[in-house]
Amino acid sequence: MKKLPLDEVEELLRTVPGWSLADGKLFREFTFAGFSEAFGFMTAMAIAAESMDHHPEWFNVHKNVKVWLNSHEVDGISSSDFELASKMNAFFSGMVQQQK
Amino acid sequence: MKKLPLDEVEELLRTVPGWSLADGKLFREFTFAGFSEAFGFMTAMAIAAESMDHHPEWFNVHKNVKVWLNSHEVDGISSSDFELASKMNAFFSGMVQQQK
Amino acid sequence: MKKLPLDEVEELLRTVPGWSLADGKLFREFTFAGFSEAFGFMTAMAIAAESMDHHPEWFNVHKNVKVWLNSHEVDGISSSDFELASKMNAFFSGMVQQQK
Amino acid sequence: MKKLPLDEVEELLRTVPGWSLADGKLFREFTFAGFSEAFGFMTAMAIAAESMDHHPEWFNVHKNVKVWLNSHEVDGISSSDFELASKMNAFFSGMVQQQK
Repeated sequence: MKKLPLDEVEELLRTVPGWSLADGKLFREFTFAGFSEAFGFMTAMAIAAESMDHHPEWFNVHKNVKVWLNSHEVDGISSSDFELASKMNAFFSGMVQQQK
Repeated sequence: MKKLPLDEVEELLRTVPGWSLADGKLFREFTFAGFSEAFGFMTAMAIAAESMDHHPEWFNVHKNVKVWLNSHEVDGISSSDFELASKMNAFFSGMVQQQK
Repeated sequence: MKKLPLDEVEELLRTVPGWSLADGKLFREFTFAGFSEAFGFMTAMAIAAESMDHHPEWFNVHKNVKVWLNSHEVDGISSSDFELASKMNAFFSGMVQQQK
Repeated sequence: MKKLPLDEVEELLRTVPGWSLADGKLFREFTFAGFSEAFGFMTAMAIAAESMDHHPEWFNVHKNVKVWLNSHEVDGISSSDFELASKMNAFFSGMVQQQK
């Protein structure tokens, strides 16, 4: 795992819509149809995170989930953060389509 | 909550694709992309079930989830079972679209 | 549901060890043996919260969980907040004993 | 990972109270105070299982959880099954103490 330089981070940010840089971390806010959907998302991502041994910082209230990703091992952002961000986007996309 | 007669159950089954009658219960088997998706689904549905105070019988191994629904209070199938089956289908549909 | 006056909040805080007042909300930080314990705790409490229709604000990273409770319906702290705080303490106590 | 011979399985079963052999699998039934506790237990163990890449077969209804463990890779019971059984017992013990 290595720290990505800022220009590479900005390049990769284009691949994960909705994510931005905040205080040196990848950040995204997700809004769901309700609490069960929000927490179901968090559980699926908790298991995915555990299998990567790479855990998010996240805040939840009701149907809202805020996520911050960084890699403290390298004191910055690594490819693992983008991998987890991408998994979250894929999972979220499906759940949003279902709500339409 | 009241027990639905068999003809009504069969009529309502058309509204929840994938479900069938098995031993007097509504039954469906769901297959997911992996364990995290399967268990995320279960968690979202666990919270939905709790808010209805109506809990499923379910079996999980890896990416497979089997669900049986009935209403022991009326010793049969009630509208709550169809409501929960319908929620499961809606949530599952979104997750399947995401996997494509 | 009614807003509790400050003196009553302070009296009730003695019944839920570990909790304090922070920015007008009940606050406690929980530390677990690992991520699986932390997230298992959150899931059990998510289901308990849903059955009360009273959801926490919470932040998680790895084995750490921070919780804030208040009742926006009354713009303050109500007995529901103490009920949920008490459930969290009871559940946490058992998990801590297990870790010894 | 290797298949344990029956005499070793029977020896190791003494280290995990509550577990027995059923159809060539380790089996235990857990009963909790309620659904939130049962499903919180399952979630913590789902994450533990994912980190071992070793998933249980389990059945849940309300406050009851039945678990079967075996290792299909070796067509039998391996040390991973006892490791997961032991984690489940440790987690459950804490939750039971809390309920007293």
